[in-house]
Amino acid sequence: MKETEHLSARRREPREAAVLERIERIATRTGIRGSGVCLGIGDDAALFQGRSGFDEILTCDWFVEGTHFLRHLHQADAVGWKCLARAVSDVAAMGGAPRCFLVSLALGASDTGPWLDQFLNGLRRAARRFGCVLAGGDTTQRKDILINVTVVGEVRAGTAVLRSGARPGDMLFASGRLGEAEMGLRLIRESKRRANSRDRVLRKHLYPEPRLRLGRWLAKKRLASAMMDLSDGLSTDLPRLCAASGVGARLEARKLPLARVPTSRRKHEDDRLEMALHGGDDYELLFAVPRLKLKQIPRSFDGILITAIGEIKKERTLLLVNESGREVSLPNRGWDPFRRKR
Amino acid sequence: MKETEHLSARRREPREAAVLERIERIATRTGIRGSGVCLGIGDDAALFQGRSGFDEILTCDWFVEGTHFLRHLHQADAVGWKCLARAVSDVAAMGGAPRCFLVSLALGASDTGPWLDQFLNGLRRAARRFGCVLAGGDTTQRKDILINVTVVGEVRAGTAVLRSGARPGDMLFASGRLGEAEMGLRLIRESKRRANSRDRVLRKHLYPEPRLRLGRWLAKKRLASAMMDLSDGLSTDLPRLCAASGVGARLEARKLPLARVPTSRRKHEDDRLEMALHGGDDYELLFAVPRLKLKQIPRSFDGILITAIGEIKKERTLLLVNESGREVSLPNRGWDPFRRKR
Repeated sequence: MKETEHLSARRREPREAAVLERIERIATRTGIRGSGVCLGIGDDAALFQGRSGFDEILTCDWFVEGTHFLRHLHQADAVGWKCLARAVSDVAAMGGAPRCFLVSLALGASDTGPWLDQFLNGLRRAARRFGCVLAGGDTTQRKDILINVTVVGEVRAGTAVLRSGARPGDMLFASGRLGEAEMGLRLIRESKRRANSRDRVLRKHLYPEPRLRLGRWLAKKRLASAMMDLSDGLSTDLPRLCAASGVGARLEARKLPLARVPTSRRKHEDDRLEMALHGGDDYELLFAVPRLKLKQIPRSFDGILITAIGEIKKERTLLLVNESGREVSLPNRGWDPFRRKR
Repeated sequence: MKETEHLSARRREPREAAVLERIERIATRTGIRGSGVCLGIGDDAALFQGRSGFDEILTCDWFVEGTHFLRHLHQADAVGWKCLARAVSDVAAMGGAPRCFLVSLALGASDTGPWLDQFLNGLRRAARRFGCVLAGGDTTQRKDILINVTVVGEVRAGTAVLRSGARPGDMLFASGRLGEAEMGLRLIRESKRRANSRDRVLRKHLYPEPRLRLGRWLAKKRLASAMMDLSDGLSTDLPRLCAASGVGARLEARKLPLARVPTSRRKHEDDRLEMALHGGDDYELLFAVPRLKLKQIPRSFDGILITAIGEIKKERTLLLVNESGREVSLPNRGWDPFRRKR
């Protein structure tokens, strides 16, 4: 054992501590002591009180360089926002409210400076916006940046909306516009430089908004028989809802709420249906509503469009009534990390 | 949009589903419907009921190829066991019991076969052993294998043992033997081939046992003023406990419970103190006990050694009384992912 000079416990703490300290700072800023979190970063685990009368929701999501974001195109601030939005969206999809989250970071030593600061800034803004607090995490070193976010949410006992409740005859609805995030990604890829976060057309791709209030309202009013969030694209996610419910579905292309294309970017006009069907990352809600409750569904909620896009069928097939009125099979071409790129 | 042949929702589900299906299988086997988990894999998030009178514990941990395990030396079964043991150990360190966990996997398409099966087998055995159930997760594709485990545990309200409660005069204890995992790692590295999991000397490195029962007992009896698990090595972890408590400590080298070295491997005999001080991955408990309660601490618990290794001091320095009785500063040379290898 080498004898070294006296060092205080504080000074001897190595570099990982500096990374954790940065993370801790945002925990404090987002109000770690609130929301029933008794203990946050700095101990072995976060600690929070369960509330009676509520079911808790647990979800985790990867957000990985090269797969979910590109370092040269996506600023760290947007990465921070989106990694949380993505996980929180799963809570929205059950009709719950997020309470706290854990963030696990694998990153290079050179990313622990400005990149990490900006990342945490986006994360903090998202946490405030979505009403949840950072409760802990873990860091490790890696050449590429890998992020894993766990969110704990809650929902009034017995009101969570699952994927499995859709019944034949239910109408299918989607919130917002579909394909906007995909269009944003295409525009960023074309420009080949880091996205300007003030560009409204890119907002949905860079800073998605999980539909928390809508999800909670639908759950509270018991209007939706089944619900999920659209993260991998309608053509990939709808089959999941149908499989869980043991049903099929029939979509109408003419009813899909397509992305609005700015006049300067008209070349994407023709791809709007394609983007709405197969584009990922929209984080809109897809939900089924029994016929008897249809009247209670508004045309918009909080300024967000709500559109009937098809219906649930008994036959376990997925059909699309295309723009010329012909019924065709809906191919699954959305996002899957284990499938090669289209 | 290409028109393809009719496919059922089931057949259209892409490859990620196959990965999830494998994971789901172990969720079912470990009894997902038990332990208050209302809903597991297959929906947007896991759902479980909070119990009144309990605080919940949340923790997450990376387990990453090249950093925490080596593919050519560590069998997938041990990787599955250890990634959960590591996270569960944080729950043990607070005196809690694990309830459920989420596992996020990044792995290559070629690892979704036998490697994944063996990994899940180890994970399942560990889940049973530690009494917790798989509640969900997320997968993504990556060349290297990266695992992130989140554990949710609980502890009777107000009884969690934190790192911050140590006071001057408290005695410091460690469970088990320190440095055994490090010795196992050295032996595996020397042999340069995949470890034989039946080798008893390698067990602590391959299949660590979080000290759940001991941790709960100490918490329930309110015997420990501060506690943490030894994951990064005593010389790295003790400063963390001291910093959280605002104290220092004085360790006695002659009292440390060193690894037993098998006669065939005597060349490691001289490194035993070094391994006990700086070796990581032991997952033993380090805890402080006020003088008045010392008599209640047994010499072993469940057959696991419990050893007084030093005491808490007011002065914020970390001292080691070395084998020749001389007081020296304790250098921090344990594990830190952001520090270069020793």
